[in-house]
Amino acid sequence: MDNDDLRSMGWRERLYIIIFFTNTPAGKRFDTWLLVIIFASLVVVLFDSVAMYSDRHGPLLDGLEWLFTVIFLIEYLVRIYCHPEPRKYIFSFYGAIDLLSVVPAFIALVLPDAEYLLVVRAIRMLRVFRVLKLTQYLSQANFLLVALHGSKQKIIVFLLSVTTMVLIYGTLMYVIEGPSNGFTSIPMSIYWAVVTLTTVGFGDIVPHTPLGKAVATMVMITGYSIIAVPTGIFTAELATAMRADSLQHKCPSCEKLSHEPNAAFCSRCGSQLFERNAER
Amino acid sequence: MDNDDLRSMGWRERLYIIIFFTNTPAGKRFDTWLLVIIFASLVVVLFDSVAMYSDRHGPLLDGLEWLFTVIFLIEYLVRIYCHPEPRKYIFSFYGAIDLLSVVPAFIALVLPDAEYLLVVRAIRMLRVFRVLKLTQYLSQANFLLVALHGSKQKIIVFLLSVTTMVLIYGTLMYVIEGPSNGFTSIPMSIYWAVVTLTTVGFGDIVPHTPLGKAVATMVMITGYSIIAVPTGIFTAELATAMRADSLQHKCPSCEKLSHEPNAAFCSRCGSQLFERNAER
Amino acid sequence: MDNDDLRSMGWRERLYIIIFFTNTPAGKRFDTWLLVIIFASLVVVLFDSVAMYSDRHGPLLDGLEWLFTVIFLIEYLVRIYCHPEPRKYIFSFYGAIDLLSVVPAFIALVLPDAEYLLVVRAIRMLRVFRVLKLTQYLSQANFLLVALHGSKQKIIVFLLSVTTMVLIYGTLMYVIEGPSNGFTSIPMSIYWAVVTLTTVGFGDIVPHTPLGKAVATMVMITGYSIIAVPTGIFTAELATAMRADSLQHKCPSCEKLSHEPNAAFCSRCGSQLFERNAER
Amino acid sequence: MDNDDLRSMGWRERLYIIIFFTNTPAGKRFDTWLLVIIFASLVVVLFDSVAMYSDRHGPLLDGLEWLFTVIFLIEYLVRIYCHPEPRKYIFSFYGAIDLLSVVPAFIALVLPDAEYLLVVRAIRMLRVFRVLKLTQYLSQANFLLVALHGSKQKIIVFLLSVTTMVLIYGTLMYVIEGPSNGFTSIPMSIYWAVVTLTTVGFGDIVPHTPLGKAVATMVMITGYSIIAVPTGIFTAELATAMRADSLQHKCPSCEKLSHEPNAAFCSRCGSQLFERNAER
Repeated sequence: MDNDDLRSMGWRERLYIIIFFTNTPAGKRFDTWLLVIIFASLVVVLFDSVAMYSDRHGPLLDGLEWLFTVIFLIEYLVRIYCHPEPRKYIFSFYGAIDLLSVVPAFIALVLPDAEYLLVVRAIRMLRVFRVLKLTQYLSQANFLLVALHGSKQKIIVFLLSVTTMVLIYGTLMYVIEGPSNGFTSIPMSIYWAVVTLTTVGFGDIVPHTPLGKAVATMVMITGYSIIAVPTGIFTAELATAMRADSLQHKCPSCEKLSHEPNAAFCSRCGSQLFERNAER
Repeated sequence: MDNDDLRSMGWRERLYIIIFFTNTPAGKRFDTWLLVIIFASLVVVLFDSVAMYSDRHGPLLDGLEWLFTVIFLIEYLVRIYCHPEPRKYIFSFYGAIDLLSVVPAFIALVLPDAEYLLVVRAIRMLRVFRVLKLTQYLSQANFLLVALHGSKQKIIVFLLSVTTMVLIYGTLMYVIEGPSNGFTSIPMSIYWAVVTLTTVGFGDIVPHTPLGKAVATMVMITGYSIIAVPTGIFTAELATAMRADSLQHKCPSCEKLSHEPNAAFCSRCGSQLFERNAER
Repeated sequence: MDNDDLRSMGWRERLYIIIFFTNTPAGKRFDTWLLVIIFASLVVVLFDSVAMYSDRHGPLLDGLEWLFTVIFLIEYLVRIYCHPEPRKYIFSFYGAIDLLSVVPAFIALVLPDAEYLLVVRAIRMLRVFRVLKLTQYLSQANFLLVALHGSKQKIIVFLLSVTTMVLIYGTLMYVIEGPSNGFTSIPMSIYWAVVTLTTVGFGDIVPHTPLGKAVATMVMITGYSIIAVPTGIFTAELATAMRADSLQHKCPSCEKLSHEPNAAFCSRCGSQLFERNAER
Repeated sequence: MDNDDLRSMGWRERLYIIIFFTNTPAGKRFDTWLLVIIFASLVVVLFDSVAMYSDRHGPLLDGLEWLFTVIFLIEYLVRIYCHPEPRKYIFSFYGAIDLLSVVPAFIALVLPDAEYLLVVRAIRMLRVFRVLKLTQYLSQANFLLVALHGSKQKIIVFLLSVTTMVLIYGTLMYVIEGPSNGFTSIPMSIYWAVVTLTTVGFGDIVPHTPLGKAVATMVMITGYSIIAVPTGIFTAELATAMRADSLQHKCPSCEKLSHEPNAAFCSRCGSQLFERNAER
């Protein structure tokens, strides 16, 4: 699609294609600028939280936040204006994210010290995915999602087992070590068990009794070994997803897409497949 | 199986099917409520251990524990009553877990300060697996168990190697660093070696001598690299288990063994395969 | 091989088969006892290092060490006596380990405070592998060794890259943070880089400057990501080794062992293969 | 290529082959010596940074650095002299690295306290790769690069997701915990989120509020689970790269594409395959 095609359309359609798609030069420029502004607004969020900068350059940072808010507000209104089904856009995931990019500055007028607005402002980062979603990364992210979806049930079984382990190990350590050694309650001990099982190991709470250290050793070995489980699940699913993709050659009669490697006949309708080009 | 089938049976049979299976609407409702009560009773265990809450709401928490105990007791007795072979149920794994859900409150009457009862109460978490075991997660957990079973011997070799490394590295660090640097005994040094090899790294004991740091570097690189071993073992076994599952039906004419999942025709000779049940 | 076979041999041959092999009932009993004694002697090493126990039970622990030394000495001499080629045994890997099990107690007579003897005593742990090596675990350990051997060159490239990263990151952090923040020298900074890259994270040395934290972030992300490399290498090699094993059916004419799955003809000599039993 | 071939060439050509290639005895000796000198010069860098050694042996270490600089300078000039296209060498990656090996000592004459020169000196480590690049490790490193290249887009998607998570979790923890608990700013909280998500866990900053610990638990479980993603991506790509390599030669009669490594006959039709060079 080139600029000539764009010129023959109405303003609203042209805007729609530029803003919501990336396959026009104007659309690419728009996305690039949007990315730059999103990252700039995130940098302002970071600086805003550092006492040294917010004290010295407070008005400047506030001004920049208002500038980005106005830009995002205009963008949001234009998106509503040019979308063929505005209602659908407004209630979509990215529509909500776009709205969230705009509101913090206005809420801050009413509630000047609302700290949680920083989180709302950080959520702007999610807009980056929309911009990139429309590029070549889509198909790659898709692979990861297919693999994650395929391993969903196995991962739930795994997370449930981890939760059980963490609960039982945590209770055990609370009983063994007790409040005098920093394990002040079972939730605290469960927090310790998560810190240890995931091999993070902050060291803010550590076992002091020999029995506690023995149990800790078991928790650590368990955590070190069972990391193999989610890795194995995901790797096996991803390998399957990638293999399935590499074998997509259409059956000429029933249009079934994926076939076994080197299959001579379609496994659904039994008709002969054309010799496939083996460019890999 | 629908409600009409259930109505034509005796009370005991109906209860058995509702309580031990999930493929009836009543059974699903029973399981959902059981899950809710199990989690509620675990939340009470957590709150009971937090000094702030147990001081303020002690009687309430005790009352709730008795409520859950009575519910679990009734459930346990009903399970015994309606099971076709009560003895078999009582001595099964889940029968023991069910009994353990009931006893802590009664033991607490005799021994009011027995802290270890908290662990017994936490074991209730395992009941969650029974409830879920009867649903669609079964087959997925099965995959993981098949893979774990297949890699059992390799994992024993791996764990034995880790034990040897940890023992020798621990002894080495005890000799190098000595009690003055926190390595007070060989068991303590082995604990440190486990903390380091599993990449947990609490930081409660750290090497102080240059030679100790050099050995620690080796321990860390070793731990970082050999995590590949259990992961590789499990991934390879899981991939094999998944492939084996997707490929088990013989072609009746050419005797080709492995086919694509849900293939209706043999991809080598084109003859029709027997329709397999695709419950997955 | 049963007891009758053993009785028809000379004493020396019978001892040789009992001690060096496990496929006789007597050999299995011998190995079991040897394992028990090795672990008992290791437990004595552990207790010996704990001040509390060595102070109170010093003579008992010394006596036990002498008991185990005498047992190991007799075993060593018997092994030399009954081996068909004693010289070959003495200079083999396990021959050296067996000798090392005996010497510490005698050296301790001359040098009573030689702490490093603890390490020599801990090396006894390696004898466990000999005992197990002769059982069913052999073939499984073999898989791991084949996979490790196959990935040797890739692992060297990986370790060299890690060494380079750790050297450059370490030097960088020394220059950025400097001795005042705990990075007292480049070797110390390299130690920190290893602690961080391997995701151990003791926390004994941490960056304090913003730039140091930024570089630390890069080190951590790097370490978190590149663990995929050894895991990927080993998994791919192990999967290859396991697939190769599952495909071992002998060619009737050229005796080639491993063939492609479902191969109808030998890929070395071209002769037809017998239909294989697909029990896996 | 043997010494006779070398003797028939001119000096410049002989030098070029000795210095830039390794398949001559002289070239191998040259590379070995170069490796020794590079490592020796790196050891000097390490010792130079340890206060104890640089105070006591300062002049010796400076002298050695000058010695290595002169050697590297001569080597650099000889490389320029004998290379057929000197300009191409000078502006190549390794040409730049070679120059960087020489400059620090000269800059130190002008700016005696320039600490960052240590980093420049550490970069010499990269020269090791050139020496090894010309040996058998090349093809192995190539596999890793092919796999990394193939997974580039997936890894960018992964890193972007991690960045988003770290940004949002970091902001959340800053709002929950606040400056009084060590989370002094959002950049600091993001640093904490990276430390936790990558399972490094220094423990210099830890959550103190119950809500903060709950969020930290989520960060840790996330970090523990998603490490499966880069590992899965890389493993799947590497397995594909390895399989592709072992399977590239067409059967001349039935056109089957993939065969076992070193197969001499097609396993489908039994016809002879072209002999391939089995240098692996």
